[in-house]
Amino acid sequence: MRSHYCGQVNESLIGQEVSVAGWVHRRRDHGGVIFVDLRDREGLLQVVFDPDRKEVFQNAERLRSEFCVHITGKVRARPSGTANANLASGQIEVLAHELEILNRSETPPFHHDEATNEELRLKYRYIDLRRDVMQQRLRLRHKVTRAMRAFLDENGFIDVETPMLTKATPEGARDYLVPSRTHPGHFFALPQSPQLFKQLLMMSGFDRYYQIVKCFRDEDLRADRQPEFTQLDIETSFMNEAEITGLMEKLARYLFKAAINVDLPDPFPRMTYEEAMRRYGSDKPDLRIPLELVDIADLVKDCEFKVFAGPASSADGRVAALRVPEGGTKLSRKQIDDYTPFVGRYGAKGLAYVKVNEKAKGRDGLQSPILKFLSDAAVSGILERTGAQDGELIFFGADKAKVVNDALGALRLKVGQDLGLVANAWRPLWVVNFPMFEWDADAKRWGAMHHPFTAPREPDPSTLKADPANAVSQGYDMVLNGSEIGGGSVRIHRAEMQSAVFDLLGIGPEEQIRKFGFLLEALKFGTPPHGGIAFGLDRLVMLMAGADSIRDVIAFPKTQTAADLMTDAPTTVSEQQLKELHVRVKLPVKAAD
Amino acid sequence: MRSHYCGQVNESLIGQEVSVAGWVHRRRDHGGVIFVDLRDREGLLQVVFDPDRKEVFQNAERLRSEFCVHITGKVRARPSGTANANLASGQIEVLAHELEILNRSETPPFHHDEATNEELRLKYRYIDLRRDVMQQRLRLRHKVTRAMRAFLDENGFIDVETPMLTKATPEGARDYLVPSRTHPGHFFALPQSPQLFKQLLMMSGFDRYYQIVKCFRDEDLRADRQPEFTQLDIETSFMNEAEITGLMEKLARYLFKAAINVDLPDPFPRMTYEEAMRRYGSDKPDLRIPLELVDIADLVKDCEFKVFAGPASSADGRVAALRVPEGGTKLSRKQIDDYTPFVGRYGAKGLAYVKVNEKAKGRDGLQSPILKFLSDAAVSGILERTGAQDGELIFFGADKAKVVNDALGALRLKVGQDLGLVANAWRPLWVVNFPMFEWDADAKRWGAMHHPFTAPREPDPSTLKADPANAVSQGYDMVLNGSEIGGGSVRIHRAEMQSAVFDLLGIGPEEQIRKFGFLLEALKFGTPPHGGIAFGLDRLVMLMAGADSIRDVIAFPKTQTAADLMTDAPTTVSEQQLKELHVRVKLPVKAAD
Repeated sequence: MRSHYCGQVNESLIGQEVSVAGWVHRRRDHGGVIFVDLRDREGLLQVVFDPDRKEVFQNAERLRSEFCVHITGKVRARPSGTANANLASGQIEVLAHELEILNRSETPPFHHDEATNEELRLKYRYIDLRRDVMQQRLRLRHKVTRAMRAFLDENGFIDVETPMLTKATPEGARDYLVPSRTHPGHFFALPQSPQLFKQLLMMSGFDRYYQIVKCFRDEDLRADRQPEFTQLDIETSFMNEAEITGLMEKLARYLFKAAINVDLPDPFPRMTYEEAMRRYGSDKPDLRIPLELVDIADLVKDCEFKVFAGPASSADGRVAALRVPEGGTKLSRKQIDDYTPFVGRYGAKGLAYVKVNEKAKGRDGLQSPILKFLSDAAVSGILERTGAQDGELIFFGADKAKVVNDALGALRLKVGQDLGLVANAWRPLWVVNFPMFEWDADAKRWGAMHHPFTAPREPDPSTLKADPANAVSQGYDMVLNGSEIGGGSVRIHRAEMQSAVFDLLGIGPEEQIRKFGFLLEALKFGTPPHGGIAFGLDRLVMLMAGADSIRDVIAFPKTQTAADLMTDAPTTVSEQQLKELHVRVKLPVKAAD
Repeated sequence: MRSHYCGQVNESLIGQEVSVAGWVHRRRDHGGVIFVDLRDREGLLQVVFDPDRKEVFQNAERLRSEFCVHITGKVRARPSGTANANLASGQIEVLAHELEILNRSETPPFHHDEATNEELRLKYRYIDLRRDVMQQRLRLRHKVTRAMRAFLDENGFIDVETPMLTKATPEGARDYLVPSRTHPGHFFALPQSPQLFKQLLMMSGFDRYYQIVKCFRDEDLRADRQPEFTQLDIETSFMNEAEITGLMEKLARYLFKAAINVDLPDPFPRMTYEEAMRRYGSDKPDLRIPLELVDIADLVKDCEFKVFAGPASSADGRVAALRVPEGGTKLSRKQIDDYTPFVGRYGAKGLAYVKVNEKAKGRDGLQSPILKFLSDAAVSGILERTGAQDGELIFFGADKAKVVNDALGALRLKVGQDLGLVANAWRPLWVVNFPMFEWDADAKRWGAMHHPFTAPREPDPSTLKADPANAVSQGYDMVLNGSEIGGGSVRIHRAEMQSAVFDLLGIGPEEQIRKFGFLLEALKFGTPPHGGIAFGLDRLVMLMAGADSIRDVIAFPKTQTAADLMTDAPTTVSEQQLKELHVRVKLPVKAAD
C-alpha cells in the first residue's frame, strides 16, 4: 500500500510519485489550499491538496484529525521560505493525486501535544501510544532487549523459557495464585522470578542461561512498581563472583553504548554494603550527588543532649551528620523547616541542624537550636570532621541506625535535587558484601537479605550457623544513579549448606521438603558452582529514556491499584467459571458488621 | 575456571595445558589407569588419570558418574588405534595434573543412554535435560527464536510486550483466572493470545509488531497440548492478505534455512478450505502423503445401499472414496479390519472397501461385502473416477460430511504411514478462504471459525448479515506436513463491521460493551487496515527437531493433567493467602452425596 514511510520521504525523491499511508496529524487550510501533516511511525510529511484537482480536493475537505488515509502523489520541493528544518521531510511536500480515506475518526479525547492526566492516557492508551514520545520509548525498549540478546547470544548464553504456572515459593512478596481445574483445591503461583528453574538449568549443564521474562508480585504498588514486570534473568556455571560481575558490567556497558550511545566506566567501582550505608545511608547510593554522611557518635555520646547521647551509646543506634555546601546561603528557612516532616516519613522524630555563618567566631558564628546542648569539644569535633565551611549547613540524624540511614539517605537525595547538585552523568557501581541475614524483630528470627539460595562467603555450614549475625553473602547489586538495576549472587550449590541456611531462616525439615524438596533432591546429583543476576528491564529502560515512571515504558501498564483502565480488568466472572475451578468468592466483611 | 569447553579440545591443542569443568559421564578402569569421559554442554573429553601421579590418581578413584569436577591437564594424542572418530575430541585425551571435585553425585535415577518412562524423566527433569538430545532440542529452540527475531528486526517489526494479567476474552477455550486482591471478587485472566492488544498496537500506529509470548488455555490436554504454550505473535498495518502471507512464508523459509538448513518451496502453494476438505478431508492436509479423497455421491445416490444412498442425497452428507495403491496386496486382512474401530473414533459407523483384484474381469475381479448392493454403473463409475488399478484397494466413507472428512482424513494419514507412503520432505501450504461462521447445532447459533475479529471478504455489513452461511473470511493457516504451524487473518477495522459480526455470533449489545467496549471505542479513532498471524513455537520446534511431543522441546513441561511432576505444582495454599484474595476453596461434591 505504501512505497515509503512518511518520515522517509525527502529531497532525493523530488519529481517521483510516492504512496504513503497514515494519520492526519494536523490539517490547515491556507489560501484555498488544504495542507495535511500526515503521520506514521517514522515521522511527518506535508501533503498538499490543490483545488485544481477537484475530486481529490473535495475528498480532502472531509479530512479531520486522526483520519486514517492512503495518499498517492508527487514529491516536490517546498516553496522557498516554507521549509521546516525540524523535519526529515521538511524540505519537500507531496502534491496529492489520489486520496483514499481508510477510516474516519471521532475527535480524540486528547491531542498529541496536550498534557493530560494519566488516568485519561491509560484509558485511551491506544491514543496515548500514538504520541511520538511514547513510540520512541517503546522502540528504545526494543533496542535495549535486542542489544541484550546480541551480547548474550554472542557470549554463549542460551535463551530457555521457564514456566509461568509454577509452585508458590517464598521470594519475599505475595504470590499471584491461579486455581487449578484439574486438581481441585490446588493452586499454581505466577513466578516472582525463575530463580529455582534457572538454578535447575545449571544443574542440567546448560552452563549459561538467559531469559527476558515476565515476573509477578502482588504487592501494594509504589510509584515505580507494577504487578507484572519484566526482568532479564541470567545464570552461569563455573564462574566466581568477580567473573560474573565482570561479565555483567560488560553487558551493561554494551547496552548503554548500543541503546543510547553512552560510555559507562570500565570497570565499575565496587563498594561494600557497610561503606554504602555509612557514607550514603543507602545500599543503592546515587553517586551523582556529592553529599556524604559522617559518623559523629563518638563526639556526642557523653553530651547532655539525650537525643544524640542515647543513640550514640546504643549498639543499634547511629548519630550522623550531613554537610551541605551552600546550604546555609541557598536553602530558605521554609525549605529547612519542610525537611522535618520529610525525614519524619522515614521515622525520624526531628531534624537538627547547625548553620555555619562564621566559623572563625567559634560558637558565636554558628546558628542552631541544639548548640546549647553541645560541649565545645563536640562542636569543634563536628566542624572538623564534617569539614564544614562558612555558609554551609550541617543536618543531623540520631536514632536507630535504620532510621538515620533511611532519613538522612533520603534527605541527601532531596537536598541534592533542591540545590541542583545532581551531576548530569551516569554513575554505576557494584554494592557487594551484603549481610546474609537480617534480624526480624517482630518474627524473632533471621530473614534472608537477598533470598535463601544466596551463598555465604563462609564455606563451612557449621561455622555459618555459629555466627549468622556476621555472615556476609556473595550477593551483588548493580546500582545506577540511585536505582538498583540488577541484583544477583553466587548460589549455594551444596545440599548441606542449603539445609543450614534453611535452618537458620527457621524453615523446618518438613517445610524444607514440602517447599524445596525438588531443589534439595537436585543438589544431590553433582550441582556445579553457579551464580547469576536479574536486571529490571522496566527500570533500566525508564532510566535510559529519562522517563519519570516505569508506566511510561510499558505499553499497557496497570494503575497503582493493579487495574487496567483500558480493558477494565480485573472483572467479575461467572459462577460457572468459578465452579469449574473449585473456588467461590468470599467478599471481605465490613468492620461494622 | 575453564580454558575450554570439553567438546572444543582437539588436536590443535596437543602439548598445551587446558582447564576443563563438567560431569563424569563414564569412568573406566583399564590396565591400572582411570579413564573418565568428561562431559559439558559442548561434548565429551577423555581424561586419563595415571597412577604415577599418586595424589591426583587417589582423588580420581573417588569419582563416580555425574560427579562435577574441575580438571587441569595436558592435551596429548591418543595412542594409535584408540582414536574415536565420533567425537570432535576423539583424536586426543587429557592427562590430568589436577583434579578438584566440585560436587559429588548420588547414583542418578536413570542413565543418559537409557530409555526410561516419561514420568521419571519429568520428575527428574534436571537429569533428563543433561542428555545430549535434550540439550540439542532446547538449543535448536533458541536458534529458531533467534532467527525469528533476526528476520523480524530486519523487516522493521517492533517487539512490544503485552500484559499477562488481562481481561477474560472468549477465544474459544477456558481461561486461567487469577483472583485480584485489590479488587475483591474480581479476576484477571491469563491471555489465550495477545489478540486485542496487538490490534490496539496497530491502532496506535506501531505498524509492525511482534512478540514471542506465553499464552494459556485451560483445556483438557491432548497429546500435543500444554496449558501454557509459546507463540510468535505478529501484526501488521496497511498490508493485504497476499502481502501478509507473502512476508510470512518468507519468514518461514528464513527460519528453516537458518535453523535446520532446509529450503522450503517459494512460493508456498495455496489451497482453499473447500478444496482441502474435498481432497484431504482436513483443513491441515499432509501433502507428503499422495492419497486423496474422491466424491462419489452422484454415482450412488440412487443405489439400494441405504448407507451410501442416504448421505449421498442429504444436503449435509458426503460419500467419498479413498484409493490406496498397493492397498490390495500390502495391507493384511487384520490391518483392514483394525481400520474399522480406528475410523469409529471419528464417528464413522463402519468402513466399507473394495479390493481390486483383476479389473478386467469386472465385478468378478473385485472383492467386497458391499458389491452386491451396487449397480454396474455405480461400480464402473467408482473404478473410473478413482482410477483404481489391479492390486489396489478403495475405502469408502458415507455419513454427515464432518464424519466422512474426519474419518477418511485420519484414515488417509494412518494408511499413508502404514504403507510407508509418507515422503521424506517438507510440504508447506497456505489454506485460505475459510468460512466465516460454523453453525453450532447445540447452541443453535453461529460460531466464529477463526475468532470474532477476523474480517470477511464481504465489505458490506448488511450483505454479510443476509447470508452468513456463505460468508468467506480473510483468514489463512500455514500448514506443514499435516500440522497447522501458523494461523491468522486480516482483521475487521471498522466498528460497524465488528458490531455486525458480534451480532451474528449472538453477542448482544450489552455484552459487546461489557466485553469489548474498549475495542469498539478504539475502532472509532481511525483504525488502520491490519492483519497478522501467530505461529505455535512449540509445535514448530518439535517438527524441526523431529521430536514426538512438544514436551520434548519445552524445558519444564506439564503432564496431561497439567501438573509439574518435578516441583509438585499445583499445591494447596494457606487459608490466609486465600482470604487475602477473597476466595475460598469449594471442593466438588461426589455424585453419591
